[in-house]
Amino acid sequence: MVRIKLIFLCILCLDVFSVEKVCSESLYAGEEAWLHYLPIKNDTLRQYYISRLGKVCLAGSKFDETIKSELSESLSDMLSFSPCFVTEKAARLCMQIDKKDSSLGEEGFRMENQNGQIRISSFSDAGLLYATYCLIRLVQCHEPLDRLKIKEIPRIDFRMLNHWDDMDGNIERGYAGNSLWKWNELPDVVNKRCWDYARLNASIGINSVVLNNVNADPRFLRTDYLKKIASLADVFRKYHIRVCLSVNFAAPLKPSKTPDVMKAWGGVGSLETANPREPVVQKWWEEKVREIYRLIPDFEGFLVKANSEGMPGPQDYHCTHADGANMLARALKPYGGFVFWRTFVYNPDIDKDRMKRSYKEFYPLDGLFDDNVVLQTKNGPLDFQVIEPPQPLFGAMKYTNMAAELQITQEYTGHSTYMVYLLPFWKRFLSFDTFCAGERARIVDILEGKVYPFPITAIAGVANTGDSLNWTGHHFAQANWFAFGRLAWNAELAEQQITEEWIKSTWGCDSTVVKIIRQMMLPTWKSFLKSSSPYGLGLTVDIETHYRAAFDIRVHKEWKVDSIGIGTDRTNRGSDYVSQYFEPNRSLFNDIKTCPEDLLLCFHFVNWDYKLSSGNSLRHEFLENLKSGVSQADENIALWLSLSGKIDKIRFLEVLYSLCQEKQDAYVFYSEAMSFFREKMKIK
Amino acid sequence: MVRIKLIFLCILCLDVFSVEKVCSESLYAGEEAWLHYLPIKNDTLRQYYISRLGKVCLAGSKFDETIKSELSESLSDMLSFSPCFVTEKAARLCMQIDKKDSSLGEEGFRMENQNGQIRISSFSDAGLLYATYCLIRLVQCHEPLDRLKIKEIPRIDFRMLNHWDDMDGNIERGYAGNSLWKWNELPDVVNKRCWDYARLNASIGINSVVLNNVNADPRFLRTDYLKKIASLADVFRKYHIRVCLSVNFAAPLKPSKTPDVMKAWGGVGSLETANPREPVVQKWWEEKVREIYRLIPDFEGFLVKANSEGMPGPQDYHCTHADGANMLARALKPYGGFVFWRTFVYNPDIDKDRMKRSYKEFYPLDGLFDDNVVLQTKNGPLDFQVIEPPQPLFGAMKYTNMAAELQITQEYTGHSTYMVYLLPFWKRFLSFDTFCAGERARIVDILEGKVYPFPITAIAGVANTGDSLNWTGHHFAQANWFAFGRLAWNAELAEQQITEEWIKSTWGCDSTVVKIIRQMMLPTWKSFLKSSSPYGLGLTVDIETHYRAAFDIRVHKEWKVDSIGIGTDRTNRGSDYVSQYFEPNRSLFNDIKTCPEDLLLCFHFVNWDYKLSSGNSLRHEFLENLKSGVSQADENIALWLSLSGKIDKIRFLEVLYSLCQEKQDAYVFYSEAMSFFREKMKIK
Repeated sequence: MVRIKLIFLCILCLDVFSVEKVCSESLYAGEEAWLHYLPIKNDTLRQYYISRLGKVCLAGSKFDETIKSELSESLSDMLSFSPCFVTEKAARLCMQIDKKDSSLGEEGFRMENQNGQIRISSFSDAGLLYATYCLIRLVQCHEPLDRLKIKEIPRIDFRMLNHWDDMDGNIERGYAGNSLWKWNELPDVVNKRCWDYARLNASIGINSVVLNNVNADPRFLRTDYLKKIASLADVFRKYHIRVCLSVNFAAPLKPSKTPDVMKAWGGVGSLETANPREPVVQKWWEEKVREIYRLIPDFEGFLVKANSEGMPGPQDYHCTHADGANMLARALKPYGGFVFWRTFVYNPDIDKDRMKRSYKEFYPLDGLFDDNVVLQTKNGPLDFQVIEPPQPLFGAMKYTNMAAELQITQEYTGHSTYMVYLLPFWKRFLSFDTFCAGERARIVDILEGKVYPFPITAIAGVANTGDSLNWTGHHFAQANWFAFGRLAWNAELAEQQITEEWIKSTWGCDSTVVKIIRQMMLPTWKSFLKSSSPYGLGLTVDIETHYRAAFDIRVHKEWKVDSIGIGTDRTNRGSDYVSQYFEPNRSLFNDIKTCPEDLLLCFHFVNWDYKLSSGNSLRHEFLENLKSGVSQADENIALWLSLSGKIDKIRFLEVLYSLCQEKQDAYVFYSEAMSFFREKMKIK
Repeated sequence: MVRIKLIFLCILCLDVFSVEKVCSESLYAGEEAWLHYLPIKNDTLRQYYISRLGKVCLAGSKFDETIKSELSESLSDMLSFSPCFVTEKAARLCMQIDKKDSSLGEEGFRMENQNGQIRISSFSDAGLLYATYCLIRLVQCHEPLDRLKIKEIPRIDFRMLNHWDDMDGNIERGYAGNSLWKWNELPDVVNKRCWDYARLNASIGINSVVLNNVNADPRFLRTDYLKKIASLADVFRKYHIRVCLSVNFAAPLKPSKTPDVMKAWGGVGSLETANPREPVVQKWWEEKVREIYRLIPDFEGFLVKANSEGMPGPQDYHCTHADGANMLARALKPYGGFVFWRTFVYNPDIDKDRMKRSYKEFYPLDGLFDDNVVLQTKNGPLDFQVIEPPQPLFGAMKYTNMAAELQITQEYTGHSTYMVYLLPFWKRFLSFDTFCAGERARIVDILEGKVYPFPITAIAGVANTGDSLNWTGHHFAQANWFAFGRLAWNAELAEQQITEEWIKSTWGCDSTVVKIIRQMMLPTWKSFLKSSSPYGLGLTVDIETHYRAAFDIRVHKEWKVDSIGIGTDRTNRGSDYVSQYFEPNRSLFNDIKTCPEDLLLCFHFVNWDYKLSSGNSLRHEFLENLKSGVSQADENIALWLSLSGKIDKIRFLEVLYSLCQEKQDAYVFYSEAMSFFREKMKIK
């Protein structure tokens, strides 16, 4: 009924307007994200691509069908031309598996132009899939193909998205609608968006997906759910993506025995204990794992949040995190599976300073984890703040696989209302030099296994996707998903390159559009930081939503403020958190003069009269900077309006709406911050 | 091709989202304007209306088919129920022609609830059509029908829209796309929007439409175009709307003889002269008129812009406006046609003060015009400024039919970018007491023929419609079209009533929506006035677009400004324009102390130090008020955002876009005004 009405409306619109008008005012709403194939209008360029990509010879890899459909769809949309797939290797575009060149590894590829023929080779099937998306992106970005000489090999094995999706469709800290996984439709129907989700991930190199919330409902391990999960895995496999599950450490328990935090969930087990030392528990997991692998032969493993925020874990049975993780790892080992064990713990008994706790719990366990266990560690010691110093476990753990967990979803960075482009922050985190092994022991080097020879390397991003038509709620939040994938593939890619790739493949190559959008995106993290988390003052938002300003409840718990100054002393005269870092970082952070100013209040209690590098007092600059959220939104509204007519209508208007709402909310935050801090400063 | 793609997209959307979601996020874009029939969700109310409107007995009028389809469509959309049309007069809703009650006139109706039966009666067919739209509006506004006792009779005969549409589809001073009349499709196809245009007009009582620009292309009088016009008239007739044409006074001339201003147009005549005293000219018009009436038997007449802004006219032959108008009137007279002769002339030879010119040209001609001539006079003496004193010809002309010409299209009031609701201004104009015949000789009384017994009464509005999907470019500009129609029908209707009718029938009856939208609309004219035409300082915009700030070019031509003061002296010590008014208006305007402050600079040159009624100096308040355009937009953005989720998506976003653009443009205007006036005031 409704469907018919809508179709009718569309036809009506078309009757009323000329076809040209409808094209330019299309109803496109961002659903293709960066796999948006705008027609190339420059005919010379179009003919150029057709001449290079007209005849394609495929390698005979297991991804041939996927590669064929991706190439056909993208090239016919962009070039109004369908490539022809042939068997002769003299084709203009030739893909082949080169079993001799093992240097390309399981996922790398080489792409070269040899006298007008584009030759793509790889050591593996997956390499060809990645090469395909790389080639499509080159065309989307209107890049020439003549001097093509690309060799790409991802440096990190597991490039993962973590979905905090619940069984009821809710997404914890999700701001883009409900879960993409429609459990009531699965396994019979895998909806079209799951396919597109997989395509989008594969195109940026994501090869692993944790489907469910780390606050894990044990029922996901029930056979009926495992079958649903298997049906998703069957789709994702076509795009070289493996599936993981978050598991609840207490899953083997019978429901009456589970802790209170789990009471709302149904049970899956029937045991009296979940003690990892108990053979009956080990056997339960072994059997469950066997069942999983029967359904999903390439299942990747488990992600576990244990003894954290009320979730059960091995410590409930006087066992260590290592005992717990290894028990699961041993069940997975025969099938080649892995355990991703989160280090996000902050038991108040460990230390008064929350920042120190995770390190103090895990550092003593270094070397005790099995080789198929990875410690998945948030970038900072607190909890995904707008800015944080890097977690000192990176570099400290020498004998344990370490993975970084970044947050793509904007829990503390404005949800899907604020435009906050996180790439600059992630780049900074990854390039932080820990000095754990002399110079050039950056976090990225550690993650890539260059500093300590980890057998497994991994990086995870907490996803910002949902079932909203544009995937991420805010059109520009797609950029964070894209940037995470590209960074995970190659953390050395320049900010400029990743950003331009995203803009061009999402919004087109018009030079004004590219310039203005870049100008809008790049300063957003810094301006958000200045106004909402000035000088590294974390936890400035309310406890429930992590969005609205909330200072009173934080003061004296999270940081101090009075008429003298503001901040937290974590120097060796204070909590001595600085000592968790290697030198010279320890001394740099310890000294107010050398501590990075945007982390100042995280390490120091600073007098309001303190002179910053600008020559201004902290008091003055702190208050001035609070405005930057509002003025960033204002500037972006003006910049965006200048693109009117250059952007398709729905996306143009929806972004404008986000910007207006952002400005509104930024103003509320600003007003509350001003009145709170001015009162503390005793300014009348 | 494109059509298929769009349909596919819609189906895709529907597959992805639940049906509920699509409903609330419909693609509705304002194309129904105030004939938007939202389902009534309150079931009690719905059942109530069904019980009252379930069975309908029609009168057997010539509009029966129209009435039937309007009732069916509206009630089935709002009530999910189709009324049944019967012949017995005991039906719940009974319409009848009452040939005895001639007090209802040619267009009035009576509507009463008699023991649960709604009885509508009229003296004419048209009355029933208008009653139908009245009833639909009552349901749209969720009004009870139990104590219904309505008697409505329009007080003005000709309620006209003037379209300044050119033959090439362009609309002079149009900001909502191209002309609705697709000349190349006519007469074979009258597109669907012309039908809807007629429905919308009929629903607010508009009964006359001038199809083409007053700067009239003679080719509209060619037989092929007359046939196209006849096909539009055939549609409009079904909605009790008659068609007029703007004619070029030089139309009879052969092309080589036409004045330069017409060279771009083709010719239609073959004469050597257009002298109204020449029998050959008179004959030419008589024949043309005969041809027109053969094609359009209810043709209403001609609108003429003569000897104005370069257009030809009787003065070219040393004849008066009366000579010219009467010549045309006599050609039309046998068929019952009329001449609407515009008084918008400002020949610089007449007077140094432009405001005095039209009066000085036409006042001496009072009594010389035939009785089927109407002088169509702009509300003010200048040219559709944001504010103007009323044109003193109203009241001065005692023996000549006088019609007011208002401007619905926002030529000087922000085009389709600014939200400027003009009803408050029009109300003020219409209720201005001219004192031409003692007290209570308001302009509305004059227009209604109560002061002088004009045989013909008329009011015209320069239309703001075009082929944009929402008709008027800005969704809120629909309100100006609506308000003009409602005022023309009954100028005594309260601002509050007209405004609420429009909001409810366009946006729905949610009380928050109604309250917020009213709050947004009502202050807009005043805030626009304060910032763009402060204290009645007219002509502050550039000559070409009438949009951007332009002061330098106006100074000394239109008004004076220096470090001493600002304004134009039109008192008896200055140009003595005030003397064109009757007492006491003459003295009130003449005295700076009694002159309305928002017209101050139109009548006086005022010292910057002059103390206004607020106690502030003109200098201070003038500069302060310049901000009001920006702050109005800011406030409206915040108010509009508060309606997020309560308004359908496309309209919500498009209005937000307009508001953002308005703010942007208001800021540019403000900045230029500040820098210009501060410099003149010699403020550093």
